[in-house]
Amino acid sequence: MNFIDRERPIGIFDSGIGGLTVVKRLAATLPNENLIYFGDTARVPYGSKSNSTVIEYALQDAKFLTTKNVKAIVVACNTASSVAISVLKDKYEIPIIGMIEPGTEFALKTTRNKKIGIIGTRTTTDNKAYSKALKKADKNINVFEKACPLFVPLAEEGWTKHKATYKIAEEYLAELREQNIDTLILGCTHYPILAEVIQEVIGKNVKLIDSGIAAAELVRTEIERIGLLNNSNSLGNREFYVTDIPKKFKEIAELFLSSPVKEVRKVELEDILR
Amino acid sequence: MNFIDRERPIGIFDSGIGGLTVVKRLAATLPNENLIYFGDTARVPYGSKSNSTVIEYALQDAKFLTTKNVKAIVVACNTASSVAISVLKDKYEIPIIGMIEPGTEFALKTTRNKKIGIIGTRTTTDNKAYSKALKKADKNINVFEKACPLFVPLAEEGWTKHKATYKIAEEYLAELREQNIDTLILGCTHYPILAEVIQEVIGKNVKLIDSGIAAAELVRTEIERIGLLNNSNSLGNREFYVTDIPKKFKEIAELFLSSPVKEVRKVELEDILR
Repeated sequence: MNFIDRERPIGIFDSGIGGLTVVKRLAATLPNENLIYFGDTARVPYGSKSNSTVIEYALQDAKFLTTKNVKAIVVACNTASSVAISVLKDKYEIPIIGMIEPGTEFALKTTRNKKIGIIGTRTTTDNKAYSKALKKADKNINVFEKACPLFVPLAEEGWTKHKATYKIAEEYLAELREQNIDTLILGCTHYPILAEVIQEVIGKNVKLIDSGIAAAELVRTEIERIGLLNNSNSLGNREFYVTDIPKKFKEIAELFLSSPVKEVRKVELEDILR
Repeated sequence: MNFIDRERPIGIFDSGIGGLTVVKRLAATLPNENLIYFGDTARVPYGSKSNSTVIEYALQDAKFLTTKNVKAIVVACNTASSVAISVLKDKYEIPIIGMIEPGTEFALKTTRNKKIGIIGTRTTTDNKAYSKALKKADKNINVFEKACPLFVPLAEEGWTKHKATYKIAEEYLAELREQNIDTLILGCTHYPILAEVIQEVIGKNVKLIDSGIAAAELVRTEIERIGLLNNSNSLGNREFYVTDIPKKFKEIAELFLSSPVKEVRKVELEDILR
């Protein structure tokens, strides 16, 4: 184990910019680590696409990160985590950290009445990745799952407190409100941006689970386990790569990251397909 | 000019399923024509992506259709029309019909007070394709343009009369309402799905322009001009190709087409990139 190995970056990928909420958590938990973010903005969103397409894209995204010599990969996208995590773990020897496992553990530690709600994209909820993981850990858990497809475009529009966002949240969360859940998993990395509205609509007594927080802890555990925790005292580098730089990109990216985004580099889609 | 040439299909492409509203218009105007639809559902939407990415995708989409020996190509996507139409016309000798030109002509014939509103995706409105075309035709036209990014996901969610859709429409259309426009161009092929809400919010006196209707007429003119109008008496074939078949696809596609979708074939993204 040499010095250079410990300084290898942690790679994070997402369908677009939602994963920046996870980068924010990683940067807070592991400030010294070098982070490389890859957002597939040319093909965003993944959450409305089929499993086979999402698996294909996730493999290409991970491959791009491995060309950067990353020591671990964080799948900062619940949709990709819900369908592609086992494929990625089979393919790579470095730690692969998805959103489902840490989110599930965090929720299980949090709930008192064993009634847990999950909100996510249509592909994530249809795959029932959280439900299966929760039930596997504890048969007596009651799970209530709901797809909220409009939350992603609302977050990307920056409508974090808009009346329409409340109306849509009321519609989506109505069923969950009736179930007396005490814990709600934000099963999409975009959703922390709408946490205030979601909290208000679902009620103060429901604890919201941001999988990114739990994922950051799991990343620390995993890279410690393989002896690659970066013990440098200086702040890590953050590099951002995307497949497209659309209008309003910087503004929205900074909303998600809660800090300025300096340089963003564009990667050609053809290059990641090779 | 032989019999077989006249029976060559008309190709239509879009970023996803929005273009099916144009297929509906084409099928009504030219019932005997064979139609081949290509929807790039694996990379939808285009409207939030950069010009260079949209041009690249449009070229790949058109190339796929030419492998089907189409006699004309309809760019049933306003975003692609707004950035890629001249590139496509330069590349291909067959007629290329976009949404901007027919929509503009239709709007100019419709307006009385010369105040025209345009709504579309962020990329379409930022490119000001409609504004430029309208002003070029008539310097005295007053144009009011507004991006409505949430209308696409709302249409795809099937929320055609939802309270939230009204709230969002009220927000988006507020500025246009103040301008005393008498004509409003639905500058995105998804928007006819939300026509009822849009009409109610913008007011009864404003005439909505569905570019698909005008585009279908222009297609007839163009294929007549080159002597390739299909004079068969039987109903044309309709073939549907997509790059991804996501959840709820059939249901949403039928909402857009207003008729049943039989077979949909999946095209691998790798194949269209070659």
